[in-house]
Amino acid sequence: MAQKEQITFYTHFYSPYCDRVHLALEEVKADYTVYTVDVMNKPKWYTEQINPVGKIPAITYGGPKVKPEEPSPESCKLRESLVILEFLADLFPEAGLLPTDPVLRAKARLFASDVDAHVFEGFKAYFFMREPASKLLDALDRFQQQLPARGFAVGDKWTLADMAAAPFLVRTYLLLEHDLGVYPAGEGPKTLALLRGERFARLNQYLADLRAQPSFKATWDEAAQVAIWKSNPMFKRE
Amino acid sequence: MAQKEQITFYTHFYSPYCDRVHLALEEVKADYTVYTVDVMNKPKWYTEQINPVGKIPAITYGGPKVKPEEPSPESCKLRESLVILEFLADLFPEAGLLPTDPVLRAKARLFASDVDAHVFEGFKAYFFMREPASKLLDALDRFQQQLPARGFAVGDKWTLADMAAAPFLVRTYLLLEHDLGVYPAGEGPKTLALLRGERFARLNQYLADLRAQPSFKATWDEAAQVAIWKSNPMFKRE
Ligand SMILES: N[C@@H](CCC(=O)N[C@@H](CS)C(=O)NCC(=O)O)C(=O)O
Ligand SMILES: N[C@@H](CCC(=O)N[C@@H](CS)C(=O)NCC(=O)O)C(=O)O
Repeated sequence: MAQKEQITFYTHFYSPYCDRVHLALEEVKADYTVYTVDVMNKPKWYTEQINPVGKIPAITYGGPKVKPEEPSPESCKLRESLVILEFLADLFPEAGLLPTDPVLRAKARLFASDVDAHVFEGFKAYFFMREPASKLLDALDRFQQQLPARGFAVGDKWTLADMAAAPFLVRTYLLLEHDLGVYPAGEGPKTLALLRGERFARLNQYLADLRAQPSFKATWDEAAQVAIWKSNPMFKRE
Repeated sequence: MAQKEQITFYTHFYSPYCDRVHLALEEVKADYTVYTVDVMNKPKWYTEQINPVGKIPAITYGGPKVKPEEPSPESCKLRESLVILEFLADLFPEAGLLPTDPVLRAKARLFASDVDAHVFEGFKAYFFMREPASKLLDALDRFQQQLPARGFAVGDKWTLADMAAAPFLVRTYLLLEHDLGVYPAGEGPKTLALLRGERFARLNQYLADLRAQPSFKATWDEAAQVAIWKSNPMFKRE
């Protein structure tokens, strides 16, 4: 169902935080305009008029229909992926980004907050900071232990909790498969083999369930992801 | 209005994060049991059965009425102050911890998220890490600029946004007044004088408005705060 007010989505597809919002926008079937932000060379109007912190994702909501690069002072500017997910949950209650039961809603929020605190730490440590694979694997193991025996974070339907996690998980597998990261050449596929093993059976099933979601399929372009991550100068080896 | 299920609140009054939850519990007029956690000597049952991360605040919700130190496996365990605030907002919708309009709700959440990211940074930097007063003051100035010309974060009524900020703000003034912090002796009152000056007129009005809230008055014990912060070994000067 199209909403009453316009939504403009400021993003770059490489970003897992942006991906969360993209998943949610698709899931609620919002009517929205995508604007790709040149992150390496952020436009002045972006930090001045959209997000003073300079980060992506951000959205504008409401106000007149304008060009994304000429935002209206009348629109509401929102940033922080989890804040935007909650906003979409409120705006499209029938889409079920959050369950209706207060306890399940709290569990979903805690799950998402743990992704930011822990899964992200493991991801950053291994791919960007030369810390050992065990940092990543232990973080993913703890994450996996939060999952119920089957289904999604808080039930049979995926919610914003799972949308918060999915972008980090799929990038983890993709980077390892293509041996991308600041670790020594050849280590990625070895770490991936561990991740595909018995210890991570629950995580692998969860990931398969995530990949099967129509909104996931609609937003994930594997070839484009490989290309952009391969071009990351941090991942250049001698 | 008393809720259907029991709530047990695990806390220590020194903690600004716990204070957020305390304010909200009072504001919604919840029926709750307070348990003070010995933070310096955290009980094993606490990390094993309440919060694996070991931090306060936490709450249990539901399950049978039990002693706080013998939690039931049947209760729901919640941690993370902002997650608990959202939970209370959902559980007691008529108490208005969040407005009903999606845009205002999003603004309240963004405000609270900025407190965690920025106000807390300034607080930690100055009181605990020997960084200059300008770190604190600049963070508070940026915070103040997020405030509307009058009233609270997102309207005339205070919301969880303001409850997220209040505990850090009142501790800032209190610590400065009593010259408590890792900065050189005598600096606290000087920084306080700057904070009470023209530059911070809006912040001072906001703080007065916060202090006037009945739930604030019900939870804030100035003498106890002074005593506990004075006993902090980090603040001992030669
Ligand atoms: N907490 C933020 C994090 C957003 C974030 O870190 N975005 C990155 C891209 S993944 C970014 O904008 N980096 C560019 C920069 O900091 O200049 C959220 O959840 O939205
Ligand atoms: N993000 C958490 C922060 C909680 C936190 O840092 N609590 C501190 C007290 S202010 C704590 O438990 N410290 C003791 C410890 O880490 O052992 C929240 O919002 O609840």
